Amino acid sequence: MTFTPASAKTLTADEISSMLAGELCGSSDAVFGQVQDLKVAQANEVAFFSSKPNEMGQHPSDDDFQAMHGSKAGLLLIDKKCPPPSQCHIKVENSGLAATIMAQFWQSRRAAFTAGIHPSAVIEDGAQVAASAYVGPNCVVGKNSTVGADCILYANVVLYDNVHLGDACVIQANTTIGSDGFGYSWDGQQHQHMPQIGGVRIGRGVEIGANCCIDAGTFEATEIGDGCIFDNLVHIGHNSKIGRFVIMCGQVGISGSATIGDGALFAGKSGAAGHLHVGAQARIAACAAVMSDVEAGQTVAGQPAVEIKLHQRMMATIRRNARR
Amino acid sequence: MTFTPASAKTLTADEISSMLAGELCGSSDAVFGQVQDLKVAQANEVAFFSSKPNEMGQHPSDDDFQAMHGSKAGLLLIDKKCPPPSQCHIKVENSGLAATIMAQFWQSRRAAFTAGIHPSAVIEDGAQVAASAYVGPNCVVGKNSTVGADCILYANVVLYDNVHLGDACVIQANTTIGSDGFGYSWDGQQHQHMPQIGGVRIGRGVEIGANCCIDAGTFEATEIGDGCIFDNLVHIGHNSKIGRFVIMCGQVGISGSATIGDGALFAGKSGAAGHLHVGAQARIAACAAVMSDVEAGQTVAGQPAVEIKLHQRMMATIRRNARR
Amino acid sequence: MTFTPASAKTLTADEISSMLAGELCGSSDAVFGQVQDLKVAQANEVAFFSSKPNEMGQHPSDDDFQAMHGSKAGLLLIDKKCPPPSQCHIKVENSGLAATIMAQFWQSRRAAFTAGIHPSAVIEDGAQVAASAYVGPNCVVGKNSTVGADCILYANVVLYDNVHLGDACVIQANTTIGSDGFGYSWDGQQHQHMPQIGGVRIGRGVEIGANCCIDAGTFEATEIGDGCIFDNLVHIGHNSKIGRFVIMCGQVGISGSATIGDGALFAGKSGAAGHLHVGAQARIAACAAVMSDVEAGQTVAGQPAVEIKLHQRMMATIRRNARR
Repeated sequence: MTFTPASAKTLTADEISSMLAGELCGSSDAVFGQVQDLKVAQANEVAFFSSKPNEMGQHPSDDDFQAMHGSKAGLLLIDKKCPPPSQCHIKVENSGLAATIMAQFWQSRRAAFTAGIHPSAVIEDGAQVAASAYVGPNCVVGKNSTVGADCILYANVVLYDNVHLGDACVIQANTTIGSDGFGYSWDGQQHQHMPQIGGVRIGRGVEIGANCCIDAGTFEATEIGDGCIFDNLVHIGHNSKIGRFVIMCGQVGISGSATIGDGALFAGKSGAAGHLHVGAQARIAACAAVMSDVEAGQTVAGQPAVEIKLHQRMMATIRRNARR
Repeated sequence: MTFTPASAKTLTADEISSMLAGELCGSSDAVFGQVQDLKVAQANEVAFFSSKPNEMGQHPSDDDFQAMHGSKAGLLLIDKKCPPPSQCHIKVENSGLAATIMAQFWQSRRAAFTAGIHPSAVIEDGAQVAASAYVGPNCVVGKNSTVGADCILYANVVLYDNVHLGDACVIQANTTIGSDGFGYSWDGQQHQHMPQIGGVRIGRGVEIGANCCIDAGTFEATEIGDGCIFDNLVHIGHNSKIGRFVIMCGQVGISGSATIGDGALFAGKSGAAGHLHVGAQARIAACAAVMSDVEAGQTVAGQPAVEIKLHQRMMATIRRNARR
Repeated sequence: MTFTPASAKTLTADEISSMLAGELCGSSDAVFGQVQDLKVAQANEVAFFSSKPNEMGQHPSDDDFQAMHGSKAGLLLIDKKCPPPSQCHIKVENSGLAATIMAQFWQSRRAAFTAGIHPSAVIEDGAQVAASAYVGPNCVVGKNSTVGADCILYANVVLYDNVHLGDACVIQANTTIGSDGFGYSWDGQQHQHMPQIGGVRIGRGVEIGANCCIDAGTFEATEIGDGCIFDNLVHIGHNSKIGRFVIMCGQVGISGSATIGDGALFAGKSGAAGHLHVGAQARIAACAAVMSDVEAGQTVAGQPAVEIKLHQRMMATIRRNARR
């Protein structure tokens, strides 16, 4: 492996168990310095296994359990309800989170970034970049924009004028924030562009993937709430207000002036039309096209998106009819 | 707000009414220097209200009308058929266009761009950039490419060789124009790439969003007609010929060798297969997948796309059957 | 035309026929130096015509045959089974491939690239770029990454740390390879990012379009096999293993931890959910959403994707019911 370790400090099984407030079962003389995949981990590495269903609702298969039992990892992190393996292990509430915490301790490449602005980056007049932020090669920070403490901007990120990033945001490469919103009026001869001067306001701890586009608002800022996480190639139209901790998977698109409630989840390639509201904690299935308001907590699917049980009955009916 | 004003000149309600050839009703002593959203506008700001259905066919709601009546804007721009509010207002044919005209006068950040080429941009041999054009940081203009008068290329735009932009085009950040078309022949062992030397020819007044991709043609240029407007993350395949004033919303994709007639509209995430024709003024609904020719003026929806009334009946039938 | 010729060497019809191991019918005194489109080719240019169905299964129309018979090209490359035209022509097994070979000989703009690293590119510590590779303006090659022999990286390509490109890869502009995989654990208060240190391993002769995103693996590398070809705006999630010679058209998205067999084809805007397997030579129709495993050689369509004949019956049934 070729990363710069976040911490070279190795830990004993006991120390790890304390860090995670877990319950250590069995013993190990080894010291550990890395989390690794269950199938390739060795005696001096930590691996994890989740007996809970994954984000797609799939339970681990018999093969998965067998992989756990056959793992050569010196230390396993498992959920409390998981049938205990013979290897030395630590029982924790959430084994995925526990592994994340240990990986952040040992192997976060983000920790390797030195604060500062790469000499090739362009910081325009009136822009403010926190001293603890990292701004990578060929980034552009437009006029009067701000980059908060501990932010990481990977290479070639473009922030237009009047874009504000809260603290601890991470923006992957080639992403564009603050581009002109898509607002035009036809004058009988051509489309006239409505100036878009509202900028973008992004909260704390927001993570945005590569090659995403977030447009500036017309008068007021387009807003992305604290703790949102967006995957690659996501599009957010102008004037949209995205709540806190919203999850958007790859290639999601949100049209202009939509409001999205806290904790909503958009699966891959789904989207929402403009001027509508998606309630808090709503779940939008992959490829779903939201064309009208979605209630808080509702799960929808299909094009146009409908309540998921209805969608499933619709699909089952079509399939049955086609087979007759 | 933090933009550089296009014009610091304030105007009276009378002067604005003259500029818009509108009908002033009521009076105001204020002078105005900014268009603002209806809900936040103050006594020295102009707001607008449209009583016409929006681009999605939605009429303004009672709440919308109430917002207008409650607006603190010193001057309202309204459509002729709108029930007149008590505030000082100007009746115009198209209130959205009127607001756009005033915003362009006062608050276009584009007007703040000084013509010239950012020192970090790379202009290759034989490329020609008009003296009045603006080429932003880290842009690349390839060999023998041309950038017309008054064009704006935001940061990190890449024009390959043999890409020609007409006058007054605006290209948002991280967009790629002239990349190799996706043409290959299998030789029994691997895919052989057909050279793509046709370049791209873009008309006058074309506006292209962020992180878009327009591929070079094989022998002849891929063409984008005058006055087209594309939103973010749009993909145009090689050899396509896009007519004039075509609208493509976010994440639209057009395969190779398609021809699209003047004034066609592609809603978000829709697409068209290659080697087909979409007629002038056709309307393609969100997420629609055009797999065969579309007649001029037709509106289509669905995957594969069919005439929209048929699509609606299809969806209604499925829903009815699923509920039985 | 404005490209730099790959070879200024002109060839006689006889020489071309030898190169292609074809059968020359008729004679021509002309020498040739360029492949051109059938409809615009002149007496000193070579054109080609395929009587076979195209990649969409469409046979050439009567108009297409007429275009061939009316072509002014001095030399036509045709398939063996094509009814012979009156012009001088060469019969070959695969006329498209023959034209590609001749175009690569004469008009490949890639051949015009001089090996070397553009002065504006950023090559980080420990990165290795082969002497014969071309790295364009504003590219970034991250720590410990490698770029193989004869690779071409167009402008503004970003390779993160620990990204490995085999020989003869071509990466179009604004593409991001090695960005952080989309892996998070909720800690009760916020999403914690799992470090993604596995990097990306790309085989030999891989061609990746513009504005694509390929995420780094969590522990082990995300893998792209030899000879894959990806169009623009393609997204590959972390830990996915893409086989050899896989074709992905524009805007395809593959979630994390998917495995895709050799020679699979994903048509435009299709996608696959994570943690599933698509067999070798499978064909995924445009816009299809693969939500479960696909067998080798199978063709699927729809959302969720099902075997294509079933999908077609489903669509036909719906259409029939809607018309009643």
